Amino acid sequence: FPSRLPNVGTTIFTVMSALALEHKAVNLGQGFPDFACDARLVDAVNGAMRAGHNQYPPMAGVQVLREAMSQKYEALHARRYDANTEITVTAGATQAILTAVLACVQPGDEAIVLEPCYDSYVPNIETAGAKVVRVPLTPGTFRPDFDLIAAAIRPRTRLMIINSPHNPSGTIWTDAEMRQLEALLAPTDIVLISDEVYEHMVFDGQQHQSAARYPGLAARAFIVSSFGKTYHVTGWKIGTVAAPASLTAEFRKVHQFNVFTVNTPMQYGIAEYMKDPAPYLQLSAFYQAKRDLFREGLKDSRLKLLPSQGSYFQCVDISDVSDLSEADFCQWLTREIGVAAIPLSAFYVDKFDQRVVRFCFAKKDDTLREALQRLRKL
Amino acid sequence: FPSRLPNVGTTIFTVMSALALEHKAVNLGQGFPDFACDARLVDAVNGAMRAGHNQYPPMAGVQVLREAMSQKYEALHARRYDANTEITVTAGATQAILTAVLACVQPGDEAIVLEPCYDSYVPNIETAGAKVVRVPLTPGTFRPDFDLIAAAIRPRTRLMIINSPHNPSGTIWTDAEMRQLEALLAPTDIVLISDEVYEHMVFDGQQHQSAARYPGLAARAFIVSSFGKTYHVTGWKIGTVAAPASLTAEFRKVHQFNVFTVNTPMQYGIAEYMKDPAPYLQLSAFYQAKRDLFREGLKDSRLKLLPSQGSYFQCVDISDVSDLSEADFCQWLTREIGVAAIPLSAFYVDKFDQRVVRFCFAKKDDTLREALQRLRKL
Ligand SMILES: CSCCC(=O)C(=O)O
Ligand SMILES: CSCCC(=O)C(=O)O
Repeated sequence: FPSRLPNVGTTIFTVMSALALEHKAVNLGQGFPDFACDARLVDAVNGAMRAGHNQYPPMAGVQVLREAMSQKYEALHARRYDANTEITVTAGATQAILTAVLACVQPGDEAIVLEPCYDSYVPNIETAGAKVVRVPLTPGTFRPDFDLIAAAIRPRTRLMIINSPHNPSGTIWTDAEMRQLEALLAPTDIVLISDEVYEHMVFDGQQHQSAARYPGLAARAFIVSSFGKTYHVTGWKIGTVAAPASLTAEFRKVHQFNVFTVNTPMQYGIAEYMKDPAPYLQLSAFYQAKRDLFREGLKDSRLKLLPSQGSYFQCVDISDVSDLSEADFCQWLTREIGVAAIPLSAFYVDKFDQRVVRFCFAKKDDTLREALQRLRKL
Repeated sequence: FPSRLPNVGTTIFTVMSALALEHKAVNLGQGFPDFACDARLVDAVNGAMRAGHNQYPPMAGVQVLREAMSQKYEALHARRYDANTEITVTAGATQAILTAVLACVQPGDEAIVLEPCYDSYVPNIETAGAKVVRVPLTPGTFRPDFDLIAAAIRPRTRLMIINSPHNPSGTIWTDAEMRQLEALLAPTDIVLISDEVYEHMVFDGQQHQSAARYPGLAARAFIVSSFGKTYHVTGWKIGTVAAPASLTAEFRKVHQFNVFTVNTPMQYGIAEYMKDPAPYLQLSAFYQAKRDLFREGLKDSRLKLLPSQGSYFQCVDISDVSDLSEADFCQWLTREIGVAAIPLSAFYVDKFDQRVVRFCFAKKDDTLREALQRLRKL
């Protein structure tokens, strides 16, 4: 039978993690922490299993977790989401995004992505049978170019996906940019997916501008959140989608026949752990220290540091170090220097090469120091 | 935007579970155990979390779990599946089936389902944009009618979904039937999804005839298995798909951009627990005792017992008890008698009503006795 996704290979994250393992490289490629999560979180999940929370939860997720998320959106972004009709627990952010895409675009529709973008967005739109319209973020700064976005909006445009803090560049959309998007979309019926999985990693006193804060965006948005990113458990695969009731109703139609429900004891454990807001409120400071450690170690190197305003990623320009393509450089760096990184070209359909690669600094300080020592050879 | 699934409402299982809760009815509707899973399984997952298995696993699932499944297929069904290229861990059987459907059918293709069937199959095919071709199982016996199936096969038929042990009827396909299917499909390139989630619940000394045992079927089949069903943890949402490497490659293209990966500590915990085959080898005897208890309690009632050869479901004919439609009867039974059941009409697109409802006997003996006492009022 013909392939649904003929252009899809193995994700770059899997490829680079396997290569890092093979060459005993320090893996700053795939984005995941190499340190332990809070033992209290493990205790909470263990407690839920022992309490017998092991059968199907409600389709939308367990009530206490949906309520905890509802309260969090209200506290942080002054937006009320009804726990029953506007919040759905998902098997991670990727499943949330595919499900939202399937729910709102049809064959013949168009969906806008801003490149560079996370590598699931484009195949997700293709899986739904719709047409991908790619708009570049401004080269160098990775800021949205509203003229280009406006030009990409056509009668069949049904969906746009944004991501702030941004993977891979670490940029954060400003309040002014969010307002500009709000104004631009106002006359349209375009649905927005706002991928906010790095929401609790924003540096230098800046603020995460959730789509939830902007009435004109929130009314059309699926807002995606990830406990894996926030609580250092990327392998638990639990996230949420917050969206107005009408959007949530369509989301759940697809969701109930995709995963149907999400791991019960993990949901109860996370809900219990969320009673203390400290872990997510302190996360920015925690990661800023790691970012600073990593940047400090590279500041005298020939790798040119780009800004990292948020997320757990640091991009560097390699043009003073190598003539290799980004992809070849990352392979070489992994094999010869012993540090894995991700080429930014992996975030573009046409593999656009701007001589920039991405490091993940969600690592123990010792891991970062070991990587820095190896990178000093450059 | 137009709905992708305009005909979809809330699943019958959610509706009936909510109604059961509201009326304090004994819930024999939705299929899930009301007893605890083995504490050793919880210990194993807890151990995996404490050992730090909390980050992304490999996309296809953790190696030890894929190997455990490979060995199990070889031991039970004499078929080798390569752990690396032919087994994929999924976020439950429902996600496995949607992903397989998306991987192998396109808009314009046709897919055959045998009714009555689990209520996700039809929306899954619709989500993929393909046409659903419904073939009834023989009324009364629920056995496959190969003349009808043969007549349904047309040039655009790409997929067929079968399910044995069968939900809702509890029938098991015989060796002769599996061979007949093998012969029927031989001249075609139709892909098979074999939903075998009740594989370890077969009664009266019968055997589960996995598609894995039939070379002509296995070569074209996605075989779906569920740890939730086998280990009494329906809320953990972990299953597997076994399929030839070429099919698995297409499956993983969709899978990696749907859920990407599946809960890590649960995978390690289950792999550890699988070292002892006793839990699944003893499962049929465990459930047969419950089936027998339940049937014994109804044998003098006016609910006519249909055969239950496998699964954890028992169907009964209600025509001597009530003139209500199956759906209305289930509502009435929940409210007035205090026992929830599922109408078989929920397993048909056109809500065909044959005066049969389904009870789930995956319950503590005391729960079954309480339900029987209430049902005696009929
Ligand atoms: C889902 S694997 C990739 C993890 C990640 O988000 C990234 O490295 O960009
Ligand atoms: C996924 S909820 C329904 C559980 C089940 O398999 C059934 O009751 O048929």
